Amino acid sequence: MPPIENKIILPKSELPTSWYNVLPDLPEPLGPYLTPGGQPVSPSDLAGIFPQSLIEQEVSDRSVIQIPEPVLEALSIWRPTPLVRARRLEKALGVSSRIYFKDESVSPSGSHKSNTAMAQAYFNKEAGVTRLTTETGAGQWGTALAIAAKQFGIQARVYMVKISLEQKPYRKVIMNLMGAEVLPSPSQATDAGRKALAANPDTLGTLGLAISEAVEEAAGRSDTNYVLGSVLNHVILHQTVIGQEVKKQLASIGEKPNYLIACHGGGSNFGGLVGPFVRDILSGQKIAAIAVEPESCPTLTKGEFKYDAGDTAGFTPLMPMYSLGTGFQPPAIHAGGLRYHGAAPIVSALLKSKVIEAASISAEDCFKFAQILAWSEYVIPAPESAHALAKTCLLAQELEKNGTPGCLVFTLSGHGLLDLTAYQTSGVAND
Amino acid sequence: MPPIENKIILPKSELPTSWYNVLPDLPEPLGPYLTPGGQPVSPSDLAGIFPQSLIEQEVSDRSVIQIPEPVLEALSIWRPTPLVRARRLEKALGVSSRIYFKDESVSPSGSHKSNTAMAQAYFNKEAGVTRLTTETGAGQWGTALAIAAKQFGIQARVYMVKISLEQKPYRKVIMNLMGAEVLPSPSQATDAGRKALAANPDTLGTLGLAISEAVEEAAGRSDTNYVLGSVLNHVILHQTVIGQEVKKQLASIGEKPNYLIACHGGGSNFGGLVGPFVRDILSGQKIAAIAVEPESCPTLTKGEFKYDAGDTAGFTPLMPMYSLGTGFQPPAIHAGGLRYHGAAPIVSALLKSKVIEAASISAEDCFKFAQILAWSEYVIPAPESAHALAKTCLLAQELEKNGTPGCLVFTLSGHGLLDLTAYQTSGVAND
Repeated sequence: MPPIENKIILPKSELPTSWYNVLPDLPEPLGPYLTPGGQPVSPSDLAGIFPQSLIEQEVSDRSVIQIPEPVLEALSIWRPTPLVRARRLEKALGVSSRIYFKDESVSPSGSHKSNTAMAQAYFNKEAGVTRLTTETGAGQWGTALAIAAKQFGIQARVYMVKISLEQKPYRKVIMNLMGAEVLPSPSQATDAGRKALAANPDTLGTLGLAISEAVEEAAGRSDTNYVLGSVLNHVILHQTVIGQEVKKQLASIGEKPNYLIACHGGGSNFGGLVGPFVRDILSGQKIAAIAVEPESCPTLTKGEFKYDAGDTAGFTPLMPMYSLGTGFQPPAIHAGGLRYHGAAPIVSALLKSKVIEAASISAEDCFKFAQILAWSEYVIPAPESAHALAKTCLLAQELEKNGTPGCLVFTLSGHGLLDLTAYQTSGVAND
Repeated sequence: MPPIENKIILPKSELPTSWYNVLPDLPEPLGPYLTPGGQPVSPSDLAGIFPQSLIEQEVSDRSVIQIPEPVLEALSIWRPTPLVRARRLEKALGVSSRIYFKDESVSPSGSHKSNTAMAQAYFNKEAGVTRLTTETGAGQWGTALAIAAKQFGIQARVYMVKISLEQKPYRKVIMNLMGAEVLPSPSQATDAGRKALAANPDTLGTLGLAISEAVEEAAGRSDTNYVLGSVLNHVILHQTVIGQEVKKQLASIGEKPNYLIACHGGGSNFGGLVGPFVRDILSGQKIAAIAVEPESCPTLTKGEFKYDAGDTAGFTPLMPMYSLGTGFQPPAIHAGGLRYHGAAPIVSALLKSKVIEAASISAEDCFKFAQILAWSEYVIPAPESAHALAKTCLLAQELEKNGTPGCLVFTLSGHGLLDLTAYQTSGVAND
């Protein structure tokens, strides 16, 4: 008997050639970004840190946006990514639901972040930019940007949240190996950083503050632009290759999803998976799309929907989103990529209009199910991805109890091989 | 224009269902293993630490040995592995040779070691063994064994060379996560370990000594067997899935190899790639098979062919092989998997009869070409694998100069994501 094929792999020719823009599908149009004074932000206000092409994508009302040839070429290095039927996980859980995960961990950076990093590096290169700044929480985005900057011949400086840099020293090594510069945030290189250090020299740093530092530097230098790894509309746009591929992959085996599950930090992984399904959901298909966040940073489940800044210092525009407030200091949990006070405006709008749902997961459940995945599928998930995994497993067990098994798809947004310090202190990896 | 497909992926149905035993192909029969007193070792002498099935494989004269169904099922989790045409590497090197790498890094442990770990765990389980001991240098073998022990429900204790454990703390985390126990070697748990610590409390440890500890413990406990990750004939046998797949993959695109290149520590990765091609080489096909080792541990290029023990304490039989002597203390190079005084008897015999060649590579060249691979293919190789990579690149450049480009295949025996400390101190990953 030949072994069962658990991986659904699309040929290179099935690589999506366009991005799917979810903005026109929103039940209500997104409110405009606002200046601190409350005026709508004009495209020219953003021109100091973003190229025109990305600003246009940020507000585009076209559903389909072509992927430029050089970005397609870069994506084709690792895409399409496999959709994996997790049969051994199903068996370990004792459930009859079909569980699939979209394996974004096969990218050069080990996470979905490469999808948008390649695109953003390309558009900045095209605009004549020679230097990029960004922030990184867990290190996945910084790694992706470092690699993308190398691909398109641009310099990169990454402000890495201090606690994450300490927890994940290998991330810095990779970024340096790829030619990028890495500073712990808060740093002495910016006003925002110096101010934070003066107020509290022992601060662990936050993603919001690291964004402030990167934006401040980009705004102050004409050769330098800023890139963001999540939250914004154009970032989610670039991630829609995920959902488009999942759709094709499920269709190729005659499967339809009942649940789409992704972890939620800034919203790009979730938005990238779910975006291409929004029209299906609105037209009545029974798909529950669930954004999963840590109990300790419950932006979507306990935050307030309001206009708020994307960073700590208030350099970014005010955006309509769920937020815990820019002053929220999340605890030093291991899922560094989920330590963010805000949420993507697109995801916030979808949640507010009940197109999607949100749920939160304890750190204990994350690592418990991460170990079950390691023991069954021999895959060690990033702590962020373990949130989606844990929700999927808990849901599959609940469906089993209710006698209503179904088709559950979650994104393995990244692997955990560079996050093993998290596992070391999680209680599931003792001698 | 659709993106070019660089990965040659075989369907699951093409997974080799048998191992290829190279012993019958050797130009001269392998000399028998000897006791310290110089008497041929009988199968029963090995029965204290190995199951009968593996002892039979060690001396089998059958060319083809069926892979048992449960092992096939375990291998099918990640096999067949991709053969990758490294077009961007070729471009970065400016060569017209076709360079392919066999990607063994996609296994559950991130290296080729899983191929034999699954087989050895299975055969021990079948023999009623409930506990396994082993040693690990770089940590790749220990990781593979921990995962295989989990797959077949056996306890595992891993003696990890002390310097490697310090350089690669994440390896221990994974082994612990998978349920295995990890001790730094030399340890206080064995006579061999205590003796070494008494002689030199600051010793870095060696693979040879870690083997002594694992063998000593297995020999002294009836519930415990010993497993070895390289050197022995049955280990190379299990690795021949690599070469068999490469053969099919090259044939599927009408390609024939001119050079087969693999790094050499104990010999299993090299033997696994080259074994299935030995008959082709002997029948006149022009294939240069090159075993690549570090300049600092030049077993094949500067060692002596003689009967020598596989470990430091002399617990293993004497085997006919190239050796630097059991007392050789290799420097603390980063390719921990290549810090071994001896060589596989099979590889030694092939070298002695000039069926294959050997070459050595400097640490500087390893990391130089590793960075070129990272910058072109976005793959970070294990320091061990970087030896094969570097030799391949140097050879391709030489062939280019001579106007004789060809088809070069090397094994990416493992990824380097858990070896980033090595990169950190290599000089290629500075801020």
